[in-house]
Amino acid sequence: MSRKGHKMKIAVYGYGTVARGFIDILKSYSGGNFELLKIVVKDRDKKRDIKPPLLCFEKDDILRDKDINLVIELIDDADDAYDIVVSAMRAGKNVISANKKMIAGKQEELIKISENNNVSFLYDASVGGGIAIIRNLEDSYSDENIKQLGGILNASSNYILSQMHNTGVEYSEALKVATEKGFAESNPALDVEGIDSKYKLVILVLHAFGLPVDPDDIFTWGISNIIKQDIRFAKKKGSKIKLIASAEINQSGKLVLSVMPHFITLSSLLYSVEDESNGIIGRSVFLGEQFFYGKGAGGYPTGASVFTDLDAISNGHVYKYKKYRKGNFPDYTKDHLLEVYLRSPAGSKKVMIKFISVSESWSDNEYDYIIAVTNLKDLYNKREELKEKEYFLAVTSQV
Amino acid sequence: MSRKGHKMKIAVYGYGTVARGFIDILKSYSGGNFELLKIVVKDRDKKRDIKPPLLCFEKDDILRDKDINLVIELIDDADDAYDIVVSAMRAGKNVISANKKMIAGKQEELIKISENNNVSFLYDASVGGGIAIIRNLEDSYSDENIKQLGGILNASSNYILSQMHNTGVEYSEALKVATEKGFAESNPALDVEGIDSKYKLVILVLHAFGLPVDPDDIFTWGISNIIKQDIRFAKKKGSKIKLIASAEINQSGKLVLSVMPHFITLSSLLYSVEDESNGIIGRSVFLGEQFFYGKGAGGYPTGASVFTDLDAISNGHVYKYKKYRKGNFPDYTKDHLLEVYLRSPAGSKKVMIKFISVSESWSDNEYDYIIAVTNLKDLYNKREELKEKEYFLAVTSQV
Repeated sequence: MSRKGHKMKIAVYGYGTVARGFIDILKSYSGGNFELLKIVVKDRDKKRDIKPPLLCFEKDDILRDKDINLVIELIDDADDAYDIVVSAMRAGKNVISANKKMIAGKQEELIKISENNNVSFLYDASVGGGIAIIRNLEDSYSDENIKQLGGILNASSNYILSQMHNTGVEYSEALKVATEKGFAESNPALDVEGIDSKYKLVILVLHAFGLPVDPDDIFTWGISNIIKQDIRFAKKKGSKIKLIASAEINQSGKLVLSVMPHFITLSSLLYSVEDESNGIIGRSVFLGEQFFYGKGAGGYPTGASVFTDLDAISNGHVYKYKKYRKGNFPDYTKDHLLEVYLRSPAGSKKVMIKFISVSESWSDNEYDYIIAVTNLKDLYNKREELKEKEYFLAVTSQV
Repeated sequence: MSRKGHKMKIAVYGYGTVARGFIDILKSYSGGNFELLKIVVKDRDKKRDIKPPLLCFEKDDILRDKDINLVIELIDDADDAYDIVVSAMRAGKNVISANKKMIAGKQEELIKISENNNVSFLYDASVGGGIAIIRNLEDSYSDENIKQLGGILNASSNYILSQMHNTGVEYSEALKVATEKGFAESNPALDVEGIDSKYKLVILVLHAFGLPVDPDDIFTWGISNIIKQDIRFAKKKGSKIKLIASAEINQSGKLVLSVMPHFITLSSLLYSVEDESNGIIGRSVFLGEQFFYGKGAGGYPTGASVFTDLDAISNGHVYKYKKYRKGNFPDYTKDHLLEVYLRSPAGSKKVMIKFISVSESWSDNEYDYIIAVTNLKDLYNKREELKEKEYFLAVTSQV
């Protein structure tokens, strides 16, 4: 795989926000050791500012084009993305992707395919927008014993929560603005239900702890049920509510994963992560606490991250997956106690969640409120029934 | 330079906090592709927990030892460090250093020597302790148009300022504790006068902007004159005082550099950087604002950073200095307006600093206080006379 110094001849799949951001950046660095040959899209009828021969519609043409040595996959659909990425690697082409759903669901398989075909497969833009979190995990944490990793990984839901906290708007209004600003996925449920964060967490966990995890095996609770009362209560407690993807080694040395809203106080660096920004905290034995902050969405920050991967590939960079390859990863458990805040329609709460100890509970005309300790395992086991309910659930502290 | 996969056979110079931290980390990763052959120290009479043949006193023995392919220089004295680093590179050995004074003073020469001898010369531990800021600048910012870079780069002075702000102790008491905790340089003036931060800024500026700068050409003002009144005034303004190393492109597209105390409000991510932590903000055209946070001192965080460089060298990594090599860097200017807070012994202030416009001024029995706009160039030109004075000077805002 002698790619070092080779000219990168590029095909981009997709022409959405990130693709256009990336292509703008590419143009601004004219004279670099790369050339954009093709932009492949699906919909023939959409109006675009690009034309054939740069624009093309046949994804398989690219695979047969021996000139192209780098495929950059920036489309929405995970199944199509999988086909493109796998076929490209099998055709001996390096691949950059930003498709967290596709990567999280197939990470081990994709690693093997990239190995077998002796190509680079990089995807730093899939997590944390412009934050180079995967490169940092690979370069600075490949031998570090990580105790905790996580934070705010979804720009759209963080934008909604920031707006609700800082301007007092309702959820629906904040969601509308987030969508208009282009921070939300084409299906906003992926953002607000925590699913996007969950995929990103799965990707990080393989690099940080070496452990491959099935996304469905992580308890994931979003923010779509949040109302002003929840924000008001958080403020009273000196907190902001933030959607947190969390990976933590518990006291028994086992890894606990979750995506849930958390009450975050001023003492946390995550408190200041506002709007479409992302923030990731790492805590490890030798490096101590570190924090990575940057724009979590938008064409330019994410496009710049793609450009960084392009630069890395042109220098022969591949991910090493040191911990994963060693197989020396922690056990994964959901048997973990959390203190949570639960707001539920009056009279409904006792049925669904088993509480171990209650520290506060109160009611108003419409809702019952409780702050109590529960087991993550119990939440996970009841996840399907819980989804039906109009509960707002948030972690107040790890127990 | 085919080092990839080569076993790293290591000589460490120095046995202080960072060296011992690094060696502990090395031991904890037994089975890695490296071997510690020698630890070289100067003082033969000091009691240590290591013995010959690992311990040795003759620095030149290492240079003649063909087995050793990596020299890790972790001593205090910049002149000795220079000799060690240059001789090692000339003898064909890769070098890791954490000596910011030596690197800042000789960066261009050292780059040439490493090139001419076809060896790696890495020094991520020289700036930001455990924060991989140089790697991030090299990997994510090598093509980014950076508008601003800087922050808290000195652990000891930040520890002092945090303690003064949070516990109300006097400067002298806080300095004592910082020294006991091992955060301070052996000569604490380097920390509290901003000199350590200045060297680190020079190193960052070459990677971030491509521009080599003479450390003496940067206006540098420390915190050694700070008293409780300054802290109290900052609190009244909702601020903390932090020692900030700052590189910023001004409105004329020129680079402005300074090391000065700043009033930092809650709206800045630097507000939450406490004690021995460091925090660095980068603002660039495509990535937007990013923030890097971690431990800025201590044997383990800094030792872990050295270990990361070792891992990088064993993978054949060298710094690319992309912007520096292109020679496409901004002009450097000191002609730049700042609003500053100046506290001076009663009756002394008008003599020394030319103020362009005054927004507040008041006095008490002992001191005159003024908040006014001045020119950085004027501060720089009068730097020698200013040093004689018991002024406390801090930036309240960029103008």
